[in-house]
Amino acid sequence: MSTVALIQYKDAPPEVRAVFDDIKRTRNVPDVNNFWKALANHPEALRRTWETLREIMRPGALDPLTKEMIYVAVSVANNCDYCIHSHTASAFAKGMTEAQYGELLALVSMAAQTNALANAMKVPIDPQYLAAP
Amino acid sequence: MSTVALIQYKDAPPEVRAVFDDIKRTRNVPDVNNFWKALANHPEALRRTWETLREIMRPGALDPLTKEMIYVAVSVANNCDYCIHSHTASAFAKGMTEAQYGELLALVSMAAQTNALANAMKVPIDPQYLAAP
Amino acid sequence: MSTVALIQYKDAPPEVRAVFDDIKRTRNVPDVNNFWKALANHPEALRRTWETLREIMRPGALDPLTKEMIYVAVSVANNCDYCIHSHTASAFAKGMTEAQYGELLALVSMAAQTNALANAMKVPIDPQYLAAP
Amino acid sequence: MSTVALIQYKDAPPEVRAVFDDIKRTRNVPDVNNFWKALANHPEALRRTWETLREIMRPGALDPLTKEMIYVAVSVANNCDYCIHSHTASAFAKGMTEAQYGELLALVSMAAQTNALANAMKVPIDPQYLAAP
Amino acid sequence: MSTVALIQYKDAPPEVRAVFDDIKRTRNVPDVNNFWKALANHPEALRRTWETLREIMRPGALDPLTKEMIYVAVSVANNCDYCIHSHTASAFAKGMTEAQYGELLALVSMAAQTNALANAMKVPIDPQYLAAP
Amino acid sequence: MSTVALIQYKDAPPEVRAVFDDIKRTRNVPDVNNFWKALANHPEALRRTWETLREIMRPGALDPLTKEMIYVAVSVANNCDYCIHSHTASAFAKGMTEAQYGELLALVSMAAQTNALANAMKVPIDPQYLAAP
Repeated sequence: MSTVALIQYKDAPPEVRAVFDDIKRTRNVPDVNNFWKALANHPEALRRTWETLREIMRPGALDPLTKEMIYVAVSVANNCDYCIHSHTASAFAKGMTEAQYGELLALVSMAAQTNALANAMKVPIDPQYLAAP
Repeated sequence: MSTVALIQYKDAPPEVRAVFDDIKRTRNVPDVNNFWKALANHPEALRRTWETLREIMRPGALDPLTKEMIYVAVSVANNCDYCIHSHTASAFAKGMTEAQYGELLALVSMAAQTNALANAMKVPIDPQYLAAP
Repeated sequence: MSTVALIQYKDAPPEVRAVFDDIKRTRNVPDVNNFWKALANHPEALRRTWETLREIMRPGALDPLTKEMIYVAVSVANNCDYCIHSHTASAFAKGMTEAQYGELLALVSMAAQTNALANAMKVPIDPQYLAAP
Repeated sequence: MSTVALIQYKDAPPEVRAVFDDIKRTRNVPDVNNFWKALANHPEALRRTWETLREIMRPGALDPLTKEMIYVAVSVANNCDYCIHSHTASAFAKGMTEAQYGELLALVSMAAQTNALANAMKVPIDPQYLAAP
Repeated sequence: MSTVALIQYKDAPPEVRAVFDDIKRTRNVPDVNNFWKALANHPEALRRTWETLREIMRPGALDPLTKEMIYVAVSVANNCDYCIHSHTASAFAKGMTEAQYGELLALVSMAAQTNALANAMKVPIDPQYLAAP
Repeated sequence: MSTVALIQYKDAPPEVRAVFDDIKRTRNVPDVNNFWKALANHPEALRRTWETLREIMRPGALDPLTKEMIYVAVSVANNCDYCIHSHTASAFAKGMTEAQYGELLALVSMAAQTNALANAMKVPIDPQYLAAP
């Protein structure tokens, strides 16, 4: 189904293994998920993407669960099957409750609705929204 | 620029005024923003949209600022000019810090990147993500 | 603002003028709109696009107004500023009433909402929808 | 495959059963389709979404088949697998002919094409399209 | 799974066979792929789409492999499963190397990232980009 | 218009100036364009984004003009106003001819068209496209 072969740890070159090791250590998982095995066909892209993701998903001004829920929301809007599955699972693993998931779904679909309405009517932007923040 | 005329309070029929009054009361603002004035051309849509939005944006399992940031994230992914402007302004008004905004931007763009990669490679979904939650 | 210059009739080569003439005759308008003037930078694309559009917008199993409203709906979903403006204007010119426009807006935004929900939850397709029509 | 469990009628709480009953009665079907069983995990979202959909799909200024075809068109543009399947089936059930379906497909793909062209060239909007309707 | 039946050569009317024959001759393949068998339900759309595609994919100012890679890039951005599979396979058949594919993936995902950032921040367009080319 | 202030070189902190200097040196330009001035509000995102972009746009298995054209194609599909303007201008600066630009436009719009058709009909993927490359 995939357009690329999945690279398993035992078949991976050293620079790929190094990234896989870091993912497993950082996330405390026994194996990396398919996204990384697919990306491993391109070791430079693998390293770059993982390093950026690790940095961005680190707790910061936003807590890890909030970050994961925002990731789900964007993945739904961009309609990425794999990412919806993996990030929804991650959000539940990080403690998302059914009530929070329900509100997340409501927000994503409500935003899609008003996005469509505002785009359809080409609503002029109110002056107060244009001031530099 | 708009495909519809903006309906001002003074020119609005009673059922539109009732919604405008509720928006102003709920948000504690002197006037409604252009989105509602545009939607007021269709009083039923105005009422339905406002009632749903009011219910969804109410504090619940997610706090109002988190909700607003998710709204921004989806609006960026859906590329709605008006909504990006209005919800970014609302998020700042609800206390979003520059650090939080920076992380929100990083998340939205990182998700766009991995969404594209996973879609391009048609990564097969790992079995553990397919189990019912 | 445009990435290309707009080609005016008086400056156009014969093969562009021929298409412009056909557009004006078919639509009974004194001049072509900017889309065609922009596309005229690439005469082959101009000819191909116009011939296909003329064929598709012709009355057939669907009447011209229904066609125009479907065009508006897709242009909103694809978020094309120019096309939303031009096809909304065309729909009104072909007799779309305010009530019809209100229902069109409601449909486009409702579909955006349920599209997001079904994509987010990855709803399995019911067997009856999979049967060949 | 779904990120949520499907709620069957016999396992549903009363407020979900009430909505399921209304869907079955309104559509004259023996069971609700999977979309509603998935959404039933969030009874408030279920009720809200159904009530809005029922109101919007009711015959009005647009007839039910036209509404269904517009729903298909938007679902294609938003690329919602489930919705494309379910609404295409509904449109055929409401009497869409093969000829109408062919024209619908032609419109959706033609609009996608000119949407891309107008967005790529950033065609300036003609003054006559900017006048308030 | 498909919303239409696939039309096989032996069951096709003459005008469909003529297009199938031209596709097979042009591409030097023993049978047409499913896209054309699906589109064959609407012979006029089949003919129009094939004639345009044949003209556009012909070697011109851009070589066939570059064209195919651009086609993959757009199909990823538009998230078309079928097209990603078929055009990635075609690009490999036309000589795309793994290194080129890796750079193509990197470009598509990088563009998605900066597209999201520029849209999110509503970056004003620099004057030098607005001059007519 | 922007949701953020543009950071000018003279007002930028040292870590931002270092990135600006590298952009100017790499591209041989007197000043950075607005995208970077906007992103400079978040110095870490600025550094990360620039370093990745510099690496990806470097000549490799694909030449710089091909890369720029692919960037334009994705930006059109993602409908990013700023990116369409800036990358179209960059492609012309790197030697894109009018004929190449015309073919690029034709490809982007043709792909949008067949993407919509394949998504609409849910064309089943041919077995030969599913084999691991």
